[in-house]
Amino acid sequence: MSVSVKMKEGVERSSLVRRMFEAGMVLAAEVGRENVYDFSLGNPNMAPPPAFQEALIRQAALELPGKHGYMANAGLPEVRELTAAALSREQGLPVPAESLIMTCGAGGALNVIFKTILNPGDRVLVSRPYFMEYDFYVDNHGGLLESLPATPDFEPDLGELEKRLSGKTAAVLINSPNNPTGAVYGEGTLRALGDLLRQKSREAGRVIYLISDEPYRKIVFDGITVPPVFPYYENSIIATSYSKNLSIPGERIGYLAVNPRAEFFADLTAGAVLANRILGFVNAPALMQRITGEIAGVSVDPGVYQKKRDCLCAALEEQGWEFKRPQGTFYLFPKAPGGDDLGVIEALRRERILAVPGRGFGLPGYFRLAFCVSDQTIQASLPSFKRAKAALAQGG
Amino acid sequence: MSVSVKMKEGVERSSLVRRMFEAGMVLAAEVGRENVYDFSLGNPNMAPPPAFQEALIRQAALELPGKHGYMANAGLPEVRELTAAALSREQGLPVPAESLIMTCGAGGALNVIFKTILNPGDRVLVSRPYFMEYDFYVDNHGGLLESLPATPDFEPDLGELEKRLSGKTAAVLINSPNNPTGAVYGEGTLRALGDLLRQKSREAGRVIYLISDEPYRKIVFDGITVPPVFPYYENSIIATSYSKNLSIPGERIGYLAVNPRAEFFADLTAGAVLANRILGFVNAPALMQRITGEIAGVSVDPGVYQKKRDCLCAALEEQGWEFKRPQGTFYLFPKAPGGDDLGVIEALRRERILAVPGRGFGLPGYFRLAFCVSDQTIQASLPSFKRAKAALAQGG
Repeated sequence: MSVSVKMKEGVERSSLVRRMFEAGMVLAAEVGRENVYDFSLGNPNMAPPPAFQEALIRQAALELPGKHGYMANAGLPEVRELTAAALSREQGLPVPAESLIMTCGAGGALNVIFKTILNPGDRVLVSRPYFMEYDFYVDNHGGLLESLPATPDFEPDLGELEKRLSGKTAAVLINSPNNPTGAVYGEGTLRALGDLLRQKSREAGRVIYLISDEPYRKIVFDGITVPPVFPYYENSIIATSYSKNLSIPGERIGYLAVNPRAEFFADLTAGAVLANRILGFVNAPALMQRITGEIAGVSVDPGVYQKKRDCLCAALEEQGWEFKRPQGTFYLFPKAPGGDDLGVIEALRRERILAVPGRGFGLPGYFRLAFCVSDQTIQASLPSFKRAKAALAQGG
Repeated sequence: MSVSVKMKEGVERSSLVRRMFEAGMVLAAEVGRENVYDFSLGNPNMAPPPAFQEALIRQAALELPGKHGYMANAGLPEVRELTAAALSREQGLPVPAESLIMTCGAGGALNVIFKTILNPGDRVLVSRPYFMEYDFYVDNHGGLLESLPATPDFEPDLGELEKRLSGKTAAVLINSPNNPTGAVYGEGTLRALGDLLRQKSREAGRVIYLISDEPYRKIVFDGITVPPVFPYYENSIIATSYSKNLSIPGERIGYLAVNPRAEFFADLTAGAVLANRILGFVNAPALMQRITGEIAGVSVDPGVYQKKRDCLCAALEEQGWEFKRPQGTFYLFPKAPGGDDLGVIEALRRERILAVPGRGFGLPGYFRLAFCVSDQTIQASLPSFKRAKAALAQGG
């Protein structure tokens, strides 16, 4: 045996995206990186806000005994306090510091909570399309992710969900603002979802958790705010990161927050602290904890992404591409002409545009464009989108 | 179900150490933190080397597009190059950058490699005493850690090992310099271990990996160096961190290195990169990668810990405590008088000294003192150690 059977399969399964990534690299090598329009990666092009850079310089210079030392696995007490205060304002109810475990980003937070709650064979439900790393995160800890159709507006379909919730369901996972659709779930949806989960938990004789993955909460447009989840369902848990709202995904800082009214609050927080420790995270990086605590509430200006959305959407609408305008995130999820997601990716690649097929999110028939790129890239890419569309129309 | 059965048990299992930690907190509250001699934690008291602080300030101020952005999951290419160059010198053979995956410390690196290699039910062997987080790290990924007796010098007992190696064995885990004993495994031991694993791998028809957890490599005394593992066994993997040699355990930075001559090098590195990603680490923190790359090879002065060791050992020897002087780390692992590890911990606590019982490392009959504390704490604690020894002698 070279490596584990599961990992060998995992590496092979990941190879579609890798092959595409490599095709992009080959393309970049052929025509020059600057001549490729790369809409494939959710890597924010915006610099972190000035407040982050100021806090970084201040914290770097700070002399403080034990500044880079171990701490409680849940994180620095003062950082948890500052973060809890900001979260309380956001959720509209008091969240104590004890609710929070500082984590290595939202990916870390999700692994921590799945490790905490999943028994072997437990199911986690999610609406399609979805960020397919979730499959791994659930499988890592012995569970199984099941996806189900969303509504036409890409909100959770509560009718479908009701049919699928069972005694095997440990949790429902939501992601709003959504990657890849940009949809923001309405307050009514969250309220109805909470009611459904409350009723189904009673029927199943076990708590069905609601896990809200929300790293894009601050990246929303047209003045909307994302409704909080804590008020609508007591057994809810938030996983989030500062990757997108501070443009620091490489620094791996975020947190997990357990609803203070959760039925098994003490078990959940103690379990999550232990999971954070034994999965090898131990604690979230100390320096980044201090910085995000200090500037809790600061974000990049979503107006910058809104301008990119408006520019890209107006042009693509005019060219005849079909999509729902995203309310948040920096993703656009158009229909693939003729339903052929691999075909559209290939047509775009011929025009030097890189994008991700819908099957990479569990929903062929669409494709994802990440518009966290420069305005110049968007502008310059528009004729290429037009030619790709024309080529697809001729071929179809 | 509140949380998973396994995590509920894990939290309960962890409660011995937690209760001791809490007893220490109670003691500190009663008599004042400054009046407690805390030898319980492996949290280095030394400040990071000046080169770290200088690099931190420089890197914080650096303006660089995408400085805090995503990167390849294995880490920043230039950091892997710099780290590989330092590792090549240390191991005495050329290690390419492709061997390295930057990780969230050694705890992250160990989880990554166990995730990569373990099939359900696979065994990992380790000598007692050992750092008991290993139990969790192996269990997280479906394996089972089995411990076996060490030699009287706390080196791996190859006769015992030979009896236990089987077709179920995925790996042997070593830790030199060792926590909690301070033992450094000799070159002869590593050579014989390599020969044994090569032979047993052949017999079993599967590669048995040697995993070397070595965060204390630079903390050694009396001018010795720790023999490298790569030259002695091709299917070896190093997990390490900068936590101890740079005194930055809270920053979570380290790496995994696969022996360039490993039989399944490509599978191992591809698997480890995927494991790093899907366990939610995604990548090691970007800023700390840049800093450790820049100052690769820099360490705290082990002479400072050597002085502490000499002072503590001389006094405790004179008082009649029995132990082998550590060759590295900042731990001392004396015998518990009468073999009662909980008894000695209680006798020490009465004298305001905090320590960890041997059972916390799978070996009752001993206890661990972490001497990464101030010289003043060591000096001031000596009369308390003497009184505790006397009390134990009277009680026995």
